Amino acid sequence: VPLDLADGPARQGSLRRHNLGLVLRELAAGPCTRADLARRTGLTKATISGFVETLASAGFVEQAPGGPVARGAPGRPANPVRLGPGAPVALGVEIGVDFLSACVVAPTGEVLARHRHARDHRKGEPQGRLAQAVAEAVALVAALRGRVGRLGRVAGVGVAVPGVVGPEGRVRSAPNLPGWNGLDVRAELARHLGPFGDGRAPAGPVAGRDRFVVEVGNEADLGALGELWYGDHSGLRDFALVSAEVGVGAGIVVGGRLFSGATGAAGELGHLTIDPDGPLCGCGSRGCLERYAGQEALLKGAGVHDVAGLRDAADRGEPRALAVLSRAGSGLGVASAALVNLVDVPALVLGGIYAELAPYLVPALSAELRVRAVRHLWDPVRLLVADLGPEAAMRGAAGVVLQRALSDPATHFPEVAG
Amino acid sequence: VPLDLADGPARQGSLRRHNLGLVLRELAAGPCTRADLARRTGLTKATISGFVETLASAGFVEQAPGGPVARGAPGRPANPVRLGPGAPVALGVEIGVDFLSACVVAPTGEVLARHRHARDHRKGEPQGRLAQAVAEAVALVAALRGRVGRLGRVAGVGVAVPGVVGPEGRVRSAPNLPGWNGLDVRAELARHLGPFGDGRAPAGPVAGRDRFVVEVGNEADLGALGELWYGDHSGLRDFALVSAEVGVGAGIVVGGRLFSGATGAAGELGHLTIDPDGPLCGCGSRGCLERYAGQEALLKGAGVHDVAGLRDAADRGEPRALAVLSRAGSGLGVASAALVNLVDVPALVLGGIYAELAPYLVPALSAELRVRAVRHLWDPVRLLVADLGPEAAMRGAAGVVLQRALSDPATHFPEVAG
Repeated sequence: VPLDLADGPARQGSLRRHNLGLVLRELAAGPCTRADLARRTGLTKATISGFVETLASAGFVEQAPGGPVARGAPGRPANPVRLGPGAPVALGVEIGVDFLSACVVAPTGEVLARHRHARDHRKGEPQGRLAQAVAEAVALVAALRGRVGRLGRVAGVGVAVPGVVGPEGRVRSAPNLPGWNGLDVRAELARHLGPFGDGRAPAGPVAGRDRFVVEVGNEADLGALGELWYGDHSGLRDFALVSAEVGVGAGIVVGGRLFSGATGAAGELGHLTIDPDGPLCGCGSRGCLERYAGQEALLKGAGVHDVAGLRDAADRGEPRALAVLSRAGSGLGVASAALVNLVDVPALVLGGIYAELAPYLVPALSAELRVRAVRHLWDPVRLLVADLGPEAAMRGAAGVVLQRALSDPATHFPEVAG
Repeated sequence: VPLDLADGPARQGSLRRHNLGLVLRELAAGPCTRADLARRTGLTKATISGFVETLASAGFVEQAPGGPVARGAPGRPANPVRLGPGAPVALGVEIGVDFLSACVVAPTGEVLARHRHARDHRKGEPQGRLAQAVAEAVALVAALRGRVGRLGRVAGVGVAVPGVVGPEGRVRSAPNLPGWNGLDVRAELARHLGPFGDGRAPAGPVAGRDRFVVEVGNEADLGALGELWYGDHSGLRDFALVSAEVGVGAGIVVGGRLFSGATGAAGELGHLTIDPDGPLCGCGSRGCLERYAGQEALLKGAGVHDVAGLRDAADRGEPRALAVLSRAGSGLGVASAALVNLVDVPALVLGGIYAELAPYLVPALSAELRVRAVRHLWDPVRLLVADLGPEAAMRGAAGVVLQRALSDPATHFPEVAG
């Protein structure tokens, strides 16, 4: 019987909360008048005015500068409002295989502060290494937070990790971080987040915070959301971010939403079989994509030490570098065709190190796609290059936090509960 | 900025419609008391009583036989209600590559009438062939409808076709029905559906019908929904139906919902590359799964004429049949591992001809999955055999119609609009 009881009963009480979230998310897109808000949300002007008053008295919104502005049409001049100094910001972190990065993001998506440094997370005892990474990340976001002039509330923190993460925030599989399987990133965050996350109201910039959002996710998934929300791919709502740092992964966006499968593990592209009889892989299988197009395979194959060196060698026309990149492009093409055929995305965005290497990967990649992607028959696959480069995952992580907090501000910020 | 304007504003007016749908879908699961309904939907008993009265006066529900039944707990005896003779039924059709089948399905999922016969839809001029198939299907469901004793309203008709279908009901790609690309199945249905679908109130069993639901979809997708809703896989909410008739395809269900990708073309498993240098395929690529595990490859490889013959040969231990099935199982394993890695489903259901051949496919299939599916590290993939056999797609098609009509009865049946 086609029952779907995921939908609970709708009740009057949830309407205000839902509608307040609509208004706040509209304001995150930029300054606008009450009339704009009414038109865009479908709510009455009276409702909008009430919401704006609530949000203004909590510091979430303020009058846009310049005072009343005459509208194009005749009538009273409109008073545009915009997000104010008390509007919530979000913290984004990426714990990479060999780096740590963090940022503070305004609800408009603007990056207010950012930092990245090299740090090899493969070395040492895993639990201690995670604890150290989290402690360092928390200190880093606290410092960045201090550097931000406009001090609003902190909605929460989002953390991207290079592995599959369960809904409870525990690492389920991280092939490139030996020993991390089973580690609980969320619990480790909770241990270190005191000043931000414990529900108390410490002095200073986080006073007034109540329900602190903590999100932990896979870096390819969060990178795809970063590109969706903050990249400059106008109107792109269906795509996969195909990206590599040390590992290779895909983040899948369908209809403007992340698709992460039954347990959050979708898009595991790096261990897709390219050739069943191909070279052995560390995962125990044969002919995995990472053996053709992972960072290590590329650098080793070309005899260079880093990605910049590989790009230089290719730019100089060195045959060994060009051959390795062409082989990687073909492998990526076979794997991407599988992705396109199984998940049905009309566009691929090349991210991570593939963004920099794209000119040398795309010819072989698109040749394979043309032959192997069934949808090429009626609609060729678009190939794009990522906009946010190495920032995609941490910005996506912050974006997820903002989305949760802004969609339901009354729950996360009791001062606007009304 | 993480805006999601797909959600419109919630309004008081939509609550009743939504909640009426909840109640009707609960009733589709079996007889229950008003108290059961209140508990399961979270609505008040007064609201439930009002809804039951509305539904009863339209003939949708009736007193369950046997009169008032004492509840286990003390208090007034409860009066269970159930779906009545006026409750809507749905029509399901499958236009196969080489057959036509149809059924009438009650809102409980019970098949009230069914029929299937051989018909080769590859022959003749495509548009004329489609017109003939649709005319025949409509005549068939009308006849089946006449054979059903309990004559309720007809909610609509769902049609499964062996190809990718756009949301507008047009065939986008049907590799095994040459010339069908671009044919408009929905328009053809509208031409022939007069007595069911034209909005008028013809005499007899469909009187009172207003908004007739017409659904056209891919057979693998609808087959997966059939298995989800009507198969006996207790609690299975995440899986892919991997099935073959003439072609090979997958229907993907995640969280109890169909995942069909950006344009409805997800699960195109038949043309997944098994070996980049493998044999040429009719699609223009090389090494596609259909060349290893499609019906034609299996029968030709084993030198037999039909699937029953193949199964017999395998049962007799003929080496040629066993070799072909083992090779097909390996290919299915490589392709299924890609499906598991990219879409993240914890279970595979073997359908169509694979259901019958499963004992000979599974050994090689699961050997490949063990090595190539990354999630095997923490959670081995479950392999199941389909329950509904060749009926899955037409029953799924009828189920989609029921789900749409029952979720929003007030829109589809003005007599309960209240």
